[in-house]
Amino acid sequence: MITVSEARKLISDHSRGNREEVLPLIDALDRALSADIVSPVDTPPFHQSAVDGYAFSYSDWDKKVGVEIAGEVQAGTVYNGHIGSKGVRIFTGAPLPSGLDTVVMQEKVELTGGLIMIRDEMILAGSNVRLQGSQTKAGDIVLKKGHRMTPASISFLASLGIIQVTVYALPRIRIIVTGKELVQPGGHLGGGQIFESNSFALRSALQAMDITPVSVEIVADDEDAIVHAIQAALDADLLILTGGASVGEYDLVPSSLERCGVKKVFHKVKQKPGKPFYFGTFDNVLVFGLPGNPAAVLSCFYEYITPAIGKFTGRQYQKRLKMILAHDFQRKPGLTQFMKGKTKGNTVFILDHQESYLMNSFSHADALVELEEERDVITKGELVDVLMILI
Amino acid sequence: MITVSEARKLISDHSRGNREEVLPLIDALDRALSADIVSPVDTPPFHQSAVDGYAFSYSDWDKKVGVEIAGEVQAGTVYNGHIGSKGVRIFTGAPLPSGLDTVVMQEKVELTGGLIMIRDEMILAGSNVRLQGSQTKAGDIVLKKGHRMTPASISFLASLGIIQVTVYALPRIRIIVTGKELVQPGGHLGGGQIFESNSFALRSALQAMDITPVSVEIVADDEDAIVHAIQAALDADLLILTGGASVGEYDLVPSSLERCGVKKVFHKVKQKPGKPFYFGTFDNVLVFGLPGNPAAVLSCFYEYITPAIGKFTGRQYQKRLKMILAHDFQRKPGLTQFMKGKTKGNTVFILDHQESYLMNSFSHADALVELEEERDVITKGELVDVLMILI
Repeated sequence: MITVSEARKLISDHSRGNREEVLPLIDALDRALSADIVSPVDTPPFHQSAVDGYAFSYSDWDKKVGVEIAGEVQAGTVYNGHIGSKGVRIFTGAPLPSGLDTVVMQEKVELTGGLIMIRDEMILAGSNVRLQGSQTKAGDIVLKKGHRMTPASISFLASLGIIQVTVYALPRIRIIVTGKELVQPGGHLGGGQIFESNSFALRSALQAMDITPVSVEIVADDEDAIVHAIQAALDADLLILTGGASVGEYDLVPSSLERCGVKKVFHKVKQKPGKPFYFGTFDNVLVFGLPGNPAAVLSCFYEYITPAIGKFTGRQYQKRLKMILAHDFQRKPGLTQFMKGKTKGNTVFILDHQESYLMNSFSHADALVELEEERDVITKGELVDVLMILI
Repeated sequence: MITVSEARKLISDHSRGNREEVLPLIDALDRALSADIVSPVDTPPFHQSAVDGYAFSYSDWDKKVGVEIAGEVQAGTVYNGHIGSKGVRIFTGAPLPSGLDTVVMQEKVELTGGLIMIRDEMILAGSNVRLQGSQTKAGDIVLKKGHRMTPASISFLASLGIIQVTVYALPRIRIIVTGKELVQPGGHLGGGQIFESNSFALRSALQAMDITPVSVEIVADDEDAIVHAIQAALDADLLILTGGASVGEYDLVPSSLERCGVKKVFHKVKQKPGKPFYFGTFDNVLVFGLPGNPAAVLSCFYEYITPAIGKFTGRQYQKRLKMILAHDFQRKPGLTQFMKGKTKGNTVFILDHQESYLMNSFSHADALVELEEERDVITKGELVDVLMILI
């Protein structure tokens, strides 16, 4: 049985390269750029007034006489007349007429006839002007490969006139849920049956990363049916199975995967929950066999599958932090344990009801507290490793 | 001119109640419940084995003789025979036959003929059994009104057989972008023109909250056109306008809103960027008039509009934290300033290029650092208020 850090490394080592795709800018939120962005234009594209006021030539300004105002220029228009040593009324965002270099705010002039007297002790040549190219110059690299597209990034690239970007593609993911005891919610529970919930967990966790699985199949514990479902799913980038991952007579997933030519990388990890966790590959397909217990499914998803998806999409979805444990805690050592936790500032609480079949506490968790194999007694105030799970 | 905290309070005071809607469970990710959830069933729905092993009656167990095995029970099946004082082979998740109360793991028995000898010093009555109702009992309140639906919450409710939930609805939002200098990205820039980017900022920031605006209209600086657009938009819950919010001759938004019967609550806030920020109401419609500068648009959105949407959806989207400033900083006091920041652990850096027309630094920001009106000199290591903006 391998350790958690060995399992992490093996999955990372087997994760293959990612694909690119071109998206309309407005559809690129939260995606990572797969290439640098070069600005096609200067921004601002011209010398621009930063305020409502009057533009003039600083060197031509005669403080005793003032500045004669020849006309006005709004945002979105240009002043076409000959300006000479005169000034213009100007508004925020409007281009400075050629030959003018300074703007005085409207609150700081006296206007008499067609003339302004400037009453601004602080004014300098170039005041209140946004110079052409002061944000970007055509040809500049403005965002780098790997950059996560935030709303501000999208607004920024729009302001450069960019309408599409090249980003890392989302992986194609297929899900196979196994178990003959499963009934879809809304159905009627017969003897020994329970409601199927793992497909809901996985679909929602993927949705939080903007990923819709290509398929979600529910299969009974029958090896031929499982083999058939796996064969149809080996065109994905990631295949996730739940249930039947252990070594009992009815744990048919590892043997079915073998029948389909999937190469086992490891089976079983020194962890709780999720000890029977299986990982294998088929060409470039990453195959994850998760146990059937709901809490184990989500723990393994957050601990292993989210980082694997992140390698594909060029994103880091989760923060790993050190936090202060808010209370004493004691447990039997031997396995790395992922415990449902709730953070508050820099502290974290380990929630009650940690058994792998329980989801009531997981519903309130925003983090997994990771206790290393040999850590058994923790005193209030000690630091613990925390994986933030709400994206 | 009012202060930032007065502006916040006025917006909060004018925010009206929210609507509810019923959604399929799988579509409820990240929504807040508008009513408590009551479990319709016991979970587990029966006494269930937690392991692969052998079930027996603890009180009938004769340690010298061992336990005779009468048959087997898989997950998803029930044992229908008469069990008497015998035991059964049992698998994880399978129901215990009536009369049996304890399970021994398969690794801890010796099987000879049809008989097992139990070699487990630690076994107690009830070991390795998940009791019926030990997670939820029918009639229990299992999630409370206001709860945010995480992937784990969705999985949990699926396991109770629940297929739909009542949540707070998303608000209907309309956007009007004004400015005659604006050209859509992909078009050709004429003299004095710039690319329109504010609709991209607002659409993306809303998308991060799973909200698609009902409409996005780009209107030139013409009062009749603006009035017409506003009149058509007053059926929304929130109306957001950008540009023309100041008091110049071409700042037509406040006067147009007045012509449409919108009641001004405030206009201008002691803040930077976004001093000309306008807020008004029309019946239950909240109307936000943002300045045209891109950085001011997003700052005002994150500071004021996100919390207003949160009142509608019952969600708190952002964290407000105290963080350590990573460097010395100095500025002219007088206005509350929202500065683009980048966090690293518990520290925050104020980015370069803070002017309201610049978006290059905002592209890298994950936080806004809020400096109160009179705060001018800050020494490295001092605490500052931080609003986390990436959802």
